[in-house]
Amino acid sequence: MSKPTPLSGFPEWLPAGQIVERQVVETLRRTFELYGFAPLTTRAVEPMDQLLRKGETSKEVYVLRRLQADADDPSDSGLGLHFDLTVPFARYVLENAGKLQFPFRRYQIQPCWRGERPQEGRYREFLQADIDIVDRDTLPAHYEVELPLVIADALRALPLPAVTMHVNNRKLCQGFYTGLGLSDPMEAIRIVDKIDKIGPAAVAEQLTAVLGASDAQAKACLALAEISTPDASFADRVAALGVTDPLLDTGVEELVAVVEAAAEHAPGLLVADLKIARGLDYYTGTVYETFLAGSESLGSICSGGRYDNLASSGDESYPGVGLSIGVSRILGRLLGREELTATRTVPTCVLVALPNDESRADCDRLAMALRRRGIATEVAPAAQKYGKQIRFAQRRGIPFVAFPGEDGVQIRDIRSGEQVPVDPATWQPPAEDLHPRIVAG
Amino acid sequence: MSKPTPLSGFPEWLPAGQIVERQVVETLRRTFELYGFAPLTTRAVEPMDQLLRKGETSKEVYVLRRLQADADDPSDSGLGLHFDLTVPFARYVLENAGKLQFPFRRYQIQPCWRGERPQEGRYREFLQADIDIVDRDTLPAHYEVELPLVIADALRALPLPAVTMHVNNRKLCQGFYTGLGLSDPMEAIRIVDKIDKIGPAAVAEQLTAVLGASDAQAKACLALAEISTPDASFADRVAALGVTDPLLDTGVEELVAVVEAAAEHAPGLLVADLKIARGLDYYTGTVYETFLAGSESLGSICSGGRYDNLASSGDESYPGVGLSIGVSRILGRLLGREELTATRTVPTCVLVALPNDESRADCDRLAMALRRRGIATEVAPAAQKYGKQIRFAQRRGIPFVAFPGEDGVQIRDIRSGEQVPVDPATWQPPAEDLHPRIVAG
Repeated sequence: MSKPTPLSGFPEWLPAGQIVERQVVETLRRTFELYGFAPLTTRAVEPMDQLLRKGETSKEVYVLRRLQADADDPSDSGLGLHFDLTVPFARYVLENAGKLQFPFRRYQIQPCWRGERPQEGRYREFLQADIDIVDRDTLPAHYEVELPLVIADALRALPLPAVTMHVNNRKLCQGFYTGLGLSDPMEAIRIVDKIDKIGPAAVAEQLTAVLGASDAQAKACLALAEISTPDASFADRVAALGVTDPLLDTGVEELVAVVEAAAEHAPGLLVADLKIARGLDYYTGTVYETFLAGSESLGSICSGGRYDNLASSGDESYPGVGLSIGVSRILGRLLGREELTATRTVPTCVLVALPNDESRADCDRLAMALRRRGIATEVAPAAQKYGKQIRFAQRRGIPFVAFPGEDGVQIRDIRSGEQVPVDPATWQPPAEDLHPRIVAG
Repeated sequence: MSKPTPLSGFPEWLPAGQIVERQVVETLRRTFELYGFAPLTTRAVEPMDQLLRKGETSKEVYVLRRLQADADDPSDSGLGLHFDLTVPFARYVLENAGKLQFPFRRYQIQPCWRGERPQEGRYREFLQADIDIVDRDTLPAHYEVELPLVIADALRALPLPAVTMHVNNRKLCQGFYTGLGLSDPMEAIRIVDKIDKIGPAAVAEQLTAVLGASDAQAKACLALAEISTPDASFADRVAALGVTDPLLDTGVEELVAVVEAAAEHAPGLLVADLKIARGLDYYTGTVYETFLAGSESLGSICSGGRYDNLASSGDESYPGVGLSIGVSRILGRLLGREELTATRTVPTCVLVALPNDESRADCDRLAMALRRRGIATEVAPAAQKYGKQIRFAQRRGIPFVAFPGEDGVQIRDIRSGEQVPVDPATWQPPAEDLHPRIVAG
């Protein structure tokens, strides 16, 4: 076989990056579970009609075909790979509603696939980490307050650059545009959402051209979009615009609650940013977008919001709120720039040196004694000179080498060179050396 | 949307099963890492020419196509989903050989896809957990001894029915057939491998028809295939057959080492079973198959072997040894028969009861204090009557409910009904209640 080459858009990490990803995922899982989110894994495929429900993503979907499909067995025709974790989650909830307890809070960490043209931060296969809470019929707004706190804990547990979550509320915007007298508030949201791409002047033009907005109305829309405060003071600035509407009041109140809770729990994390809208139509309350300091050009690394109508079947509806972390997007940037790495490329904490081939069984027993106490241990592959065995450990970043001898076992910290006799039944490495750790590069 | 229905061959578990799978995977990871295996995740797709290298699996492969593929962008045409974790691992090793440290030991736990007709134990999407050790040019035989010990530790850490691993060695069989004077020892291995399907008489017929074996030769082949011992005594029975060959001697010696090490480390796990061959041609040394007591009809739940020629590029070859656990096959059976379940359907250990809506912020703070000490905690969704809040916990199997009050916090074990005042800064649940556990159903 000739040497294979990487596939564009399908990132794979080298061993240190693999360790970083494993620890990032484990940290996310642990945080999500502390908040009672239950693990969920769904199949990678969905029927095409589920995937195409919203139309706009159709060209990104990977369709599956069996290489030698039987014409008489259509059971797996019409399947595609999921492009996010929301569609499969909504389908799982509907399919199993009778067997689930609501409110149902789950996390889901799986790859997704989109046939997009690859570029930095956009992959064809990428790992997402989602949390959602759905309920039957109604969902209290306090979950919109809770979700960003979970994400704050998850991201703060990792050595990432600072993150800022920009938050808005669809009710606030929709109510404002209604109170302003615009004919189609949802269309106004879609137009104002383009402000970062096309600029305020073009937004004003479109508001006039598409919605027949007056100059004063367009100006008010832009004034709302300009409001961005790190605390609840946005409410005063909205009030100062002089628009009144009951839905606007609800939206302001809900956003104040989100911002105030976050200010207590994770000072500096949240910004109320009234131009954030999220493209997708299904959001109905709080919306979230998150940016990594120094990597704003990547786009949002954690987005989501409140939805009321994503999953519904017959008379039943399942409103929810969810946030999705772009794990591959974050790691692609930070591993690519060597801003993150691992303290070693293997889980191994101790290498047992092999004095000679005859002592392999004894060395295996020593390794087992350490493993039984949770210390990851390998035995050297061959009875080479000790210098070579130590280099085996060095090349992998293994911090300790154990030397079995007739007088007992000695363990050397190969970073400092310090070597001491130990009792393998009680010796413990420093806590920070027990497992590989993620460190800023 | 109408209620979705399950897709045959694409299993998904309910919440208790999801918890079981999560813990099984975590136990496997922990065990593999204790032995120094590094985590590896590869992309789900491989170029079709990689997937079809061995020809025989061609009809099982799922091919990908973008729904709206551009004729001018062939970058993701010719891709298929991997059907095992060996092909992607071999490709990853070749692609990154210059950046890896050898011997390279990795574990990989990912779904695989095969377009097979679904039946019990055979899925179209299924989770595999693989460990492999590969080296450059040569690989010492002691890794063939180590691998089943790792699997033994991993499986013993789970509440599974007894497992038995059947082990053989290709060199032993090949050498025996050569020493016997058969013209094509590899073909003899393939024929004898069918013994469980077609019976000894048919095997003898094929040996005669295909290889021109004499009656005595065919009988000797069957006599070898009948040998199965729980210890190294198989060696005497092989010797008694009176065939001599240097490769046979090596094979016996290697198999003795595997069986004896396992007898010390995991008594009762291994059986030397000289009819085991594994269908695939690429094995060259020890081969393994594993059966679950009471579920033998499922087929092997953990298979693998030593291979010398799987990955090679130009002058370099990467011999290895690997074992692959069929996680979905095991869980499909044991969850389906309710022989395994979880002590609860959520990670949550404590539900904080909500006295009234005004106390939500206080309850959130209490929850945070518990989470900070690693205790998974949720706050009740609404200030309903306490009876209803307790039933919320009961339905999910959450063991403890905390009641905040003016005199401090009380915690009730809702299984026993015992309720005591606690200091939330120090209270700790019993260790067995901290996380959900897998239990025999």
